[in-house]
Amino acid sequence: MKEEIPLSKIGVLAISDRASAGIYEDLSGKAIIELLNQYISSKWEYEYLVIPDEKKLISKTLISLADKHRCSLIITTGGTGPALRDVTPEATEEVCDKMLPGFGEQMRQVSLQYVPTAILSRQTAGIRNKTLIINLPGKPASIKQCLEAIFPAVPYCLDLIGASYLECNPKYINAFRPSK
Amino acid sequence: MKEEIPLSKIGVLAISDRASAGIYEDLSGKAIIELLNQYISSKWEYEYLVIPDEKKLISKTLISLADKHRCSLIITTGGTGPALRDVTPEATEEVCDKMLPGFGEQMRQVSLQYVPTAILSRQTAGIRNKTLIINLPGKPASIKQCLEAIFPAVPYCLDLIGASYLECNPKYINAFRPSK
Amino acid sequence: MKEEIPLSKIGVLAISDRASAGIYEDLSGKAIIELLNQYISSKWEYEYLVIPDEKKLISKTLISLADKHRCSLIITTGGTGPALRDVTPEATEEVCDKMLPGFGEQMRQVSLQYVPTAILSRQTAGIRNKTLIINLPGKPASIKQCLEAIFPAVPYCLDLIGASYLECNPKYINAFRPSK
Repeated sequence: MKEEIPLSKIGVLAISDRASAGIYEDLSGKAIIELLNQYISSKWEYEYLVIPDEKKLISKTLISLADKHRCSLIITTGGTGPALRDVTPEATEEVCDKMLPGFGEQMRQVSLQYVPTAILSRQTAGIRNKTLIINLPGKPASIKQCLEAIFPAVPYCLDLIGASYLECNPKYINAFRPSK
Repeated sequence: MKEEIPLSKIGVLAISDRASAGIYEDLSGKAIIELLNQYISSKWEYEYLVIPDEKKLISKTLISLADKHRCSLIITTGGTGPALRDVTPEATEEVCDKMLPGFGEQMRQVSLQYVPTAILSRQTAGIRNKTLIINLPGKPASIKQCLEAIFPAVPYCLDLIGASYLECNPKYINAFRPSK
Repeated sequence: MKEEIPLSKIGVLAISDRASAGIYEDLSGKAIIELLNQYISSKWEYEYLVIPDEKKLISKTLISLADKHRCSLIITTGGTGPALRDVTPEATEEVCDKMLPGFGEQMRQVSLQYVPTAILSRQTAGIRNKTLIINLPGKPASIKQCLEAIFPAVPYCLDLIGASYLECNPKYINAFRPSK
């Protein structure tokens, strides 16, 4: 009898002054949820929040999603640019035990194929206890490019940090787990 | 009637013990000014300084160019290698509110096409209030390779941080501003 | 009469809880020594140690190899992943005067050609006084890919920091020293 894979919990955190104030609808967080629905074939559920670009609030929300809601993975969108109000990478670094610079490098590398302004993106990734936190850019078009590029490494990263087991739909994502 | 674009002020800071002591002429700072004259078609003026590889002095000079001279952009050259006296990236990080790792990554990537020692370059970029600070390498040959690679993203970065508006000469640089 | 090149000392530090406890043999450190034997044609000798993934012990060992044993170069293997016990990059950063982000970037870039999980590698490089410290990944297969990619820049880096002079075997490595 095949052992049942436990449910994975994923936090999706849209960070935007205007979306959180209702000036426009958050499309970025919703785009992430839609992509995850394609990518992940094992059972999962999400916590979805839209908050303003306030560093303390971002940190507090990341901590709550990781420690209280026990998310294996948190994906943020927004607040990674060079503008004064863009503070998502700083808030992420503040709550993480260790950083994974390779995520930001690869996302910028991939985005550079589309726009030269990709070098302005400051997104990063890191680990808080048993939670992987990944910053995605704010624009829906870039979200797919970036998430597609990095997601093949996500399930193995969750294995390594003792988070939940994710299975992917090979039609969309070839999750890679090196043989021991 | 077309609105007049206000003048942009750019700091060019050559950092070299020997050039500042008059042992040889600074060619790197002058190469930057020449390239900027090709790249930028809107009105601009520069502050040009040559100083030794002293961390405190570099920080102080960056602060003065940003806060007192109101430079939109400061470009440094020199002091980005691994030698004991190379401290430009550290001085830059010290005065910046946020860092833009994508600039250094792309410059090393581009330089790697020419020399395997490009990985020894530690240059970075960051923002202090409304000023973008970019480290370029010290060698005139690498300066053109690096500046050409990153400059298409500079005008939009200045827009985002509320600095001055730059227009570029499309013969040399295709400044990229994403449509909203 | 040709001046004799002084002997170079290189530290090879395998970091692994299981190898240091004798649960399996360290193959990674030995693979590094074998590769260095191919790459380096001038005289060199090594200090080879296998220690567990303890941050304080890693830092202490790096300091001893650099300051007491006067190693020009220290190459570590292991402890660069995202798992809780992986702390090699943090221990390295703690003992270094300056960091060289280009090494990690290039190693991840090269490894990405083989496995998408290369972005999980957090390896870095830095300088402590006159010693270059480089983190390599833990898996023997990745070690060759990474060391081969970065080694052409190592001899010139040692020149720049006033460490020992290395000559390489051009059959394996084209050490690059830019003409002044």
